[in-house]
Amino acid sequence: MEGQQITHWPLYINAAMSICAFVLTVRLIPRFYDLFIAADMYGKDMSKKIPKGQEPKKVPEGLGVITGAVFLIVMFLFIPVPFWRMWKSDTREDFPHDRFVEFIAALLSICCMIFLGFADDVLDLRWRHKLQLPTMATLPLLMVYVVNYGSTTIMVPKPLNAYIGNDINLGVLYYIYMGMLAVFCTNAINILAGVNGLECGQSAVICISVIIFNIVQLSGNWSEAHLFSLYFMMPFCAVCLALLYHNWYPSRAFVGDTFCYFAGMTFAVVAILGHFSKTMLLFFIPQVINFVFSVPQLFHFVPCPRHRLPKFNPDTDTLGMSYTRFKMKNLGFIGRLAVRVCGLVGVIHIKEGVGEDKEETECSNFTILNLVLKITGPMHERNLVLVMLFIQVLGSCVAFFVRFYLAGFFYDVIVY
Amino acid sequence: MEGQQITHWPLYINAAMSICAFVLTVRLIPRFYDLFIAADMYGKDMSKKIPKGQEPKKVPEGLGVITGAVFLIVMFLFIPVPFWRMWKSDTREDFPHDRFVEFIAALLSICCMIFLGFADDVLDLRWRHKLQLPTMATLPLLMVYVVNYGSTTIMVPKPLNAYIGNDINLGVLYYIYMGMLAVFCTNAINILAGVNGLECGQSAVICISVIIFNIVQLSGNWSEAHLFSLYFMMPFCAVCLALLYHNWYPSRAFVGDTFCYFAGMTFAVVAILGHFSKTMLLFFIPQVINFVFSVPQLFHFVPCPRHRLPKFNPDTDTLGMSYTRFKMKNLGFIGRLAVRVCGLVGVIHIKEGVGEDKEETECSNFTILNLVLKITGPMHERNLVLVMLFIQVLGSCVAFFVRFYLAGFFYDVIVY
Repeated sequence: MEGQQITHWPLYINAAMSICAFVLTVRLIPRFYDLFIAADMYGKDMSKKIPKGQEPKKVPEGLGVITGAVFLIVMFLFIPVPFWRMWKSDTREDFPHDRFVEFIAALLSICCMIFLGFADDVLDLRWRHKLQLPTMATLPLLMVYVVNYGSTTIMVPKPLNAYIGNDINLGVLYYIYMGMLAVFCTNAINILAGVNGLECGQSAVICISVIIFNIVQLSGNWSEAHLFSLYFMMPFCAVCLALLYHNWYPSRAFVGDTFCYFAGMTFAVVAILGHFSKTMLLFFIPQVINFVFSVPQLFHFVPCPRHRLPKFNPDTDTLGMSYTRFKMKNLGFIGRLAVRVCGLVGVIHIKEGVGEDKEETECSNFTILNLVLKITGPMHERNLVLVMLFIQVLGSCVAFFVRFYLAGFFYDVIVY
Repeated sequence: MEGQQITHWPLYINAAMSICAFVLTVRLIPRFYDLFIAADMYGKDMSKKIPKGQEPKKVPEGLGVITGAVFLIVMFLFIPVPFWRMWKSDTREDFPHDRFVEFIAALLSICCMIFLGFADDVLDLRWRHKLQLPTMATLPLLMVYVVNYGSTTIMVPKPLNAYIGNDINLGVLYYIYMGMLAVFCTNAINILAGVNGLECGQSAVICISVIIFNIVQLSGNWSEAHLFSLYFMMPFCAVCLALLYHNWYPSRAFVGDTFCYFAGMTFAVVAILGHFSKTMLLFFIPQVINFVFSVPQLFHFVPCPRHRLPKFNPDTDTLGMSYTRFKMKNLGFIGRLAVRVCGLVGVIHIKEGVGEDKEETECSNFTILNLVLKITGPMHERNLVLVMLFIQVLGSCVAFFVRFYLAGFFYDVIVY
């Protein structure tokens, strides 16, 4: 789009469409409750009081698919807007196909991911598929990256310049990094979940942080990359908040894997094509901590129950830590080490000598939800979500500090 | 790709990948049976004998989603191949973004459609959505058409030249036509269904016809458009035949709406971007006839039961005509006219004076399956499918005759 005058109106149109998307999604979601329940897509909220003699209420699950569909429709309708001037011209030679293909490929990756997420909600796919398929879904994106940029050279932080030079060409490693970014983003949101409103809430905080970051960068100097990111983030923010409205405590709808995958892929897409993958990872600080903390259970060094969400106490209507039980002698070396070290540092709670033969050990599950509950004690579900979202906001503040203040010490040019 | 030497090897690689896709899909499908049945995605085959005291067998439904996923993965892996030479060059200026975006947009439309079909299988969407959403899914495709070609001028058949000139610019009508083509293709396959193997079988025949057509055109002169079509049709043919293997009488798997939508959209995509939408419609002759024939029931001029598939007679293990019952006086004018005219022409079978009060009328459902059964009499299910596929092959022969022989009388230049 060189030589083109800078106009803000595609951004305004995008904002207006986002507002419409919000209203549409808020109204659309409840209309699908019956369809979802009829299709056997529902869950039972394990953290709610059930009046005596009543069945737990069926909560429709996987409503993220509606947000995904609305997002796709909005983006399909929006794509022509930033290219409007070029379309009217009779000379199609000048059409910026390279920008255009970025939009289409980004939507292809996101659409694949929504599809996969929905299939996962319906069919309960295996772990293997959850890692393989997001990798496939990023392929179109990586192809566009190769074609449009192709640079796999990154700048080396100043303290290391003396040893490995000013920049380093990562080659194929850089593509592997980007592929893994998508797998990480999609799964990181999925494992920091389990209380009403947390998946949508954290996505909304990350999304708003990215929007602020883009606007700050754009006000400095005009950049296609940040504009591109805004075009995707504003409608995403809209549908995400709309879903949060229905998913907030007490949930009338569960978001399902669909939403987590959709959100993760959307973040990965804008990070990769917007060239700010490192900054994006900074906004994922709580997710990164949760992921690293979860490693001993995710890789089964310590037994991992199917659900690790906090345990509901119906007498006090609060959530407390959930535990996993095992015999210490049955763990491998790494498992024993993980339990001992985490216990010593105080990030998990250990009860020894439990069970019938007094030989079993119980420890709180390795998630930051349990860690927060260990520090604060049992808490009402809504308060727990608020604390978690506060942590997420805090993470974004740290991210901004690192990005705008500390980065200057490590890089001469601010890279994104 | 001007100035590039013509090489056939991307085509060979595509063929090799298609063979792999066939083997993979044949082996993959049975592994998902249990997942589908556990997810409540199954149907009961209404045209099979059930041994006394036994429940009808649960047949997993919606397996088309596996073929769609394999197709997408194969295409993702294939896309870099035809662009390989351009990728290695250091000057990215020459990269044919316009060709590249066609691949990505085509896959975006197909992926959207697989997603929609799967959502339909799971949630049983309303008719409204089935018409609206395919229209949305074609948007990326139409955008690419605008950008890359933008010509909405069609040639006028010679006999009409004297009245309206040699060519005519249809403008926005042309885009509406292309959007409706996608809606038609997806739904036309879906309504010519109901006996084991018919959806896959007809798609396979159409697909093979397109492949033959493309090869004939390519042998005449090299054309990117027909090459593009082949790249999509060969892997599609592979996954389609793999599904047919499991869907053939007696079916171990049902294809679901997913497959019909996936197949229809794939045909629409290659027809639009390959510039042979009229020829494609010729391959759809049986579907067009079935659609036109179905209009009285589809638009509810005549009552339409939920399933119009032929009726199974367990005593003879054959299929016969299925009927819809109504009171003639309750029909509107168009309904009465349709029943009378169709009865007179002999394409439906009418029984009058049935029901308790002898005032009701029964007529065979308005589908070509019933028409075939009216002509031949009751038939075994496998034979019925073979007759239908024979009709489809006959349709393709007519199409080739019209396209390669008759078209010369109407057009000077063979347009595609």
